[in-house]
Amino acid sequence: MKIIAFITETVVMREILGHLRVPAKECKTNRAHLKVIERWLRSYRPEELWDEQGRPHADIVALCPKAERRMAMNPHTNGGKLRRPLDLPPLEDFSVDARGRGEVRVSGMETLGKYLAEVIRRSEPQRHFRIVCPDELESNKLGAVLQTTQRQFAWPVPRHSENIAHSGAVLEVLSEHNCQGWLQGYLLTGRHGLFPCYEAFISIVDGMMNQYAKFLKAAGEVPWRAPVSSLNYLLTSETWRQEHNGYSHQGPGFINNLLTKKGHTYRIYLPPDANTLLSTIRHCLRSTGYINLIIAAKHPLPQWLSPAEADEHCRVGASVWRWASTHGDEEPEVVLAGCGDNLTVEVMAAAQILGEEAPAWRVRVVNVTDLQVLGIPQKYPHGLDEDRFQRLFPLGCPVVFNFHGYTAAIKQLLWERPQNERFDVNGYREEGTTTTPFDMQVRNKTSRWHLVILAAQKLAARNPRMAALAEELVRKYEGKLNEHHAYVRATSIDPPEILNWCWQVR
Amino acid sequence: MKIIAFITETVVMREILGHLRVPAKECKTNRAHLKVIERWLRSYRPEELWDEQGRPHADIVALCPKAERRMAMNPHTNGGKLRRPLDLPPLEDFSVDARGRGEVRVSGMETLGKYLAEVIRRSEPQRHFRIVCPDELESNKLGAVLQTTQRQFAWPVPRHSENIAHSGAVLEVLSEHNCQGWLQGYLLTGRHGLFPCYEAFISIVDGMMNQYAKFLKAAGEVPWRAPVSSLNYLLTSETWRQEHNGYSHQGPGFINNLLTKKGHTYRIYLPPDANTLLSTIRHCLRSTGYINLIIAAKHPLPQWLSPAEADEHCRVGASVWRWASTHGDEEPEVVLAGCGDNLTVEVMAAAQILGEEAPAWRVRVVNVTDLQVLGIPQKYPHGLDEDRFQRLFPLGCPVVFNFHGYTAAIKQLLWERPQNERFDVNGYREEGTTTTPFDMQVRNKTSRWHLVILAAQKLAARNPRMAALAEELVRKYEGKLNEHHAYVRATSIDPPEILNWCWQVR
Repeated sequence: MKIIAFITETVVMREILGHLRVPAKECKTNRAHLKVIERWLRSYRPEELWDEQGRPHADIVALCPKAERRMAMNPHTNGGKLRRPLDLPPLEDFSVDARGRGEVRVSGMETLGKYLAEVIRRSEPQRHFRIVCPDELESNKLGAVLQTTQRQFAWPVPRHSENIAHSGAVLEVLSEHNCQGWLQGYLLTGRHGLFPCYEAFISIVDGMMNQYAKFLKAAGEVPWRAPVSSLNYLLTSETWRQEHNGYSHQGPGFINNLLTKKGHTYRIYLPPDANTLLSTIRHCLRSTGYINLIIAAKHPLPQWLSPAEADEHCRVGASVWRWASTHGDEEPEVVLAGCGDNLTVEVMAAAQILGEEAPAWRVRVVNVTDLQVLGIPQKYPHGLDEDRFQRLFPLGCPVVFNFHGYTAAIKQLLWERPQNERFDVNGYREEGTTTTPFDMQVRNKTSRWHLVILAAQKLAARNPRMAALAEELVRKYEGKLNEHHAYVRATSIDPPEILNWCWQVR
Repeated sequence: MKIIAFITETVVMREILGHLRVPAKECKTNRAHLKVIERWLRSYRPEELWDEQGRPHADIVALCPKAERRMAMNPHTNGGKLRRPLDLPPLEDFSVDARGRGEVRVSGMETLGKYLAEVIRRSEPQRHFRIVCPDELESNKLGAVLQTTQRQFAWPVPRHSENIAHSGAVLEVLSEHNCQGWLQGYLLTGRHGLFPCYEAFISIVDGMMNQYAKFLKAAGEVPWRAPVSSLNYLLTSETWRQEHNGYSHQGPGFINNLLTKKGHTYRIYLPPDANTLLSTIRHCLRSTGYINLIIAAKHPLPQWLSPAEADEHCRVGASVWRWASTHGDEEPEVVLAGCGDNLTVEVMAAAQILGEEAPAWRVRVVNVTDLQVLGIPQKYPHGLDEDRFQRLFPLGCPVVFNFHGYTAAIKQLLWERPQNERFDVNGYREEGTTTTPFDMQVRNKTSRWHLVILAAQKLAARNPRMAALAEELVRKYEGKLNEHHAYVRATSIDPPEILNWCWQVR
C-alpha cells in the first residue's frame, strides 16, 4: 500500500511539476512504457527504503523527529489548541435606547465601531484580535476603532499619514485576497479576527472562501483538530444604499455562494437594528469553527428592539413582532416578513399602512435575523423544526417576504418546507443605478407600496369579502408608484413622506 | 445641472483620492464648512467655464474634438460594430457516430479540440479568435488546437518549450483573473474567444464576472451599442472526476453565481454527450451579448445522440428520450431527469435497471441540456412555457432529478412552477475526497442505485400495488450501496459491474 501511495504521489508530482505532461502514460497497456516507469522508480532503490511488506526500514524511521519535534506538532499548526477566548465587553455599555420603537435612528456600524474599539483595547495584553479590511474601515463607519488602535504599516510611515503606525490591530490594504489570506493565517494560528468589507466586493474572494469552507468541513471530520475561531465577515456599504456609487456596488451574491456550502460550516446573519447587530457580533466573536456572515447597514436606521429583546431575537433567529402586528394573537390572514435592516423598514412601513388603510385585516409581522432558520433542521443546524416554523408562518396563510439579497437564497432554503408556494419572495432583482434609496426599493419591487399591493392581492384572492378594499389599495399604491417614478426623476431625492416617515407606536 | 454634476464628481473624486476622508463634510448644515467648499470650488473659476444656465462657453466647447475624432468614437470602444462572424466549420466533419446508443465512448473535450483547431485555422486570415486558459489546455484534453496554433509568448521563448511561439491564438497563464481580463478586452474590441477552465477554479473570477454581467445588462439598455461576441466559459475537469485531485477540485458553484444575474444576460449549457457539445459550442460562438457557460466532461463517456438529434435537443433545450423510456407513449408513472453528462449516465443506468427489475413500471427519461428551460419564461428567455413544461414533466407525476451541480440551482429555477414538490432534486452535496468516480456519485446520492431507490419509494408512496416490488428494490439496492462502500475502500477502484456497464438498446 505504501509503495502504491508513493508511486501515485510521485506520478502526481511529476504531472504537476512537468506542467501536466505525463511521460510513458500508457504503462497499463504498453510494456515498453511500463519498463520506463519501472526503471525510473527503481532508481530510487525502494529496497533500501521499505521491507517486503512495504514498511519503511528502521533506519529510515529513525530519521523522523520524535513526539513534539515533529513538524506537524508545532502548536501553530493546530491553532485551536492555542486559542484563548476574547475578553468581550458588556453589551450594555454600547447598546441603543430603542424605546419608542423606530423613533431613534442610529448607524449600526457606528455603534459597532465603539464596541470593537473596546474589544481591541481589552485584547491588547494578549494581542490576539485583528481587523483586516480593504482600506474601507472609515468609509464603512467603523472609524471609532482608530481611537484605540492604529493601522499597522511595516515600512517607514509617510508624512501626513493618519492613524498609521508600526504596530496596531488593524491591517488595511486594498486587496480582498490579501485580507482573506491574512485572516485565515491569523485564525488558524489560534487568534481572532473580523473582515469588514463593502458587500458587493467580497465576491472577489469567493474562490478562497470556497476552499476555506472545504477546510472547515474536512477539519471537523478529524478528532484531533481543535476548532479555531470563526472567520467573521462583516458586510456593509450595502446594496441598497449606493446612491453615489450605483450599480457596480450592488451585489448581495456572497450569501448565495455561502449557501452552497455544508450547512454546519457557516451562519448568515442579517440583524434588523443596532442592538441585534451587537448581540450578533458578540455571538460570532465567541464562536468557533464557522464562517459567519453578518450583513448590516452603515446609514442611520430606525431602532426596533431593546437589548434584551435583541438578545432573545438572536437566540431564536426569527420572531413574530407582536407589537407591530395587528389583532394581537388572532390567527393572521397575511404575514409580512422582513430579513435585512433596510428591507425590514419597508416591511414596518407596509404594516403601518395596512393598519391604517385596512384596520380589519389581520396582519402579522415576522423578522428573520438568522437566515438558516428558514431551512429544514436535517440540513441546516439552525433550521426551525416544522412545528415552530408553522407557529411563525402558519400553513394556509400567505407570506410576503422581503429579503435583502437575491430571492434565490430564500427559495432554496424554503424548498423542502410544506406548502412553500405560500411564500412570495421579493429581494434584489439586479436592478439598480445611481439613484435614491427608496427608488432602489421601488426598482426592485421591495418598497412598502409594493408590499401593500402584494398583501392586498393575496388577501383578495383568498377572501372575496376583502376584494373591493384590496382593489382600492392596489389602485392607490400603483398610483403612488407612478408618482414616485416622476418625482424622483425630477428632483433626484425621495419624496418627503418617505424621508420623514416614522413608525407610529400603536 | 452640469455644475451640480461637476460638484458631485469632484467631491466623489476627492473622496476616492483622499482615501475616503471627506473635508468639510457638514456643508449642508454648517456655514463654515459651506464656505470652505465654496472657496475651493470657486478656485476653478466656474464663470470662465459655464454660462448662467450651466452650459459650457463656446471656447470650451471648441476644445472638444469633432465627430469621429472624439475619444468615445474610436471604433474599438464599440467593438460590436467591428465584429465579423467567425467562419465556423461544418459539424459533420467532427461529429461522433452514436449509433448503438451508449456503445461508443468518447471524450467530449478531445472531440471539441479538433473542432476548435479548425475554427482557429479558419480564423487566421482575420485573426479574430483566441483561447485564453489558465495553463490547462492540455490537461483539459483540448491539446489538438496546438497542432494548428501556438501558445503566444512575448518574451524570448525558453529552450525545450513546447508549442510556444511569438504568435499564436492561445494565451495561457496560470491566472484566471488575467485570462478573464484579456478575454473581456478582446471581445469588447470586436473579436471572439473561449475560456476553458477547471470547473472548480472559475469561481476565482466571480467578482469580475459579476461586473461583466452588469456591463452586459447596462449595455443592452442603450440603443447605440452594438452587441459584442458572447463571453464563452468552457468548464471541464469537472467536479465528478477528481479521483486524483480530490475535494479541493470539486466545485460547481459558478452556476449558482451566474443564476443571480439577469436572465437575459446568460445561458447555461450542460450537454449530455459530444455531439450535443459540438452543437452547443457552435451556437455559443455565433451568439452575441451573453455570458455562455458550458460544462462538459473530458473523460470518455457514452454517446447518446446522433448529430441531428443533438441539434434538435439543443434547439429545444430539454427532451423526452423516448428510446430510453419504457412503455413508449403511455403516461409515465415516474420521470428520471438528467442534467450534466456524468449525471445522465447514472440516469440511463437507473432507467435500465428499472426496465429489467420492474418492467411493468412506466418510466420516462428526460434530459436537460439548457438549464434555463426549467425556469418560467417571464424570467428566463429560454424558460419553457408551462404547457410544454408539463408535456415533459406531467403534473402529478414524481420526478427524480439528477443534476451536475448544487441542487439549489434547480430549486430556484423550479420555484415558480406549479406543484414543484413533485421534483426530488439530487446533485453535488459538497461531499468528496480523492476517490473513485462512482464513489463520488454514491457519496452525493446521485448514483444509479440511489435513483432506483428513490423512484421505487416515490412509486410505492403513490400506488400501494407497487409497494411490495418497490420495497424489494429498495432493500436490494441499499445492500448494493453497502457492498460498494466496503469494496471501494478495499480496492480503491470501482466494481466491474460499474466499470463495464454499457447501455443495452431495447
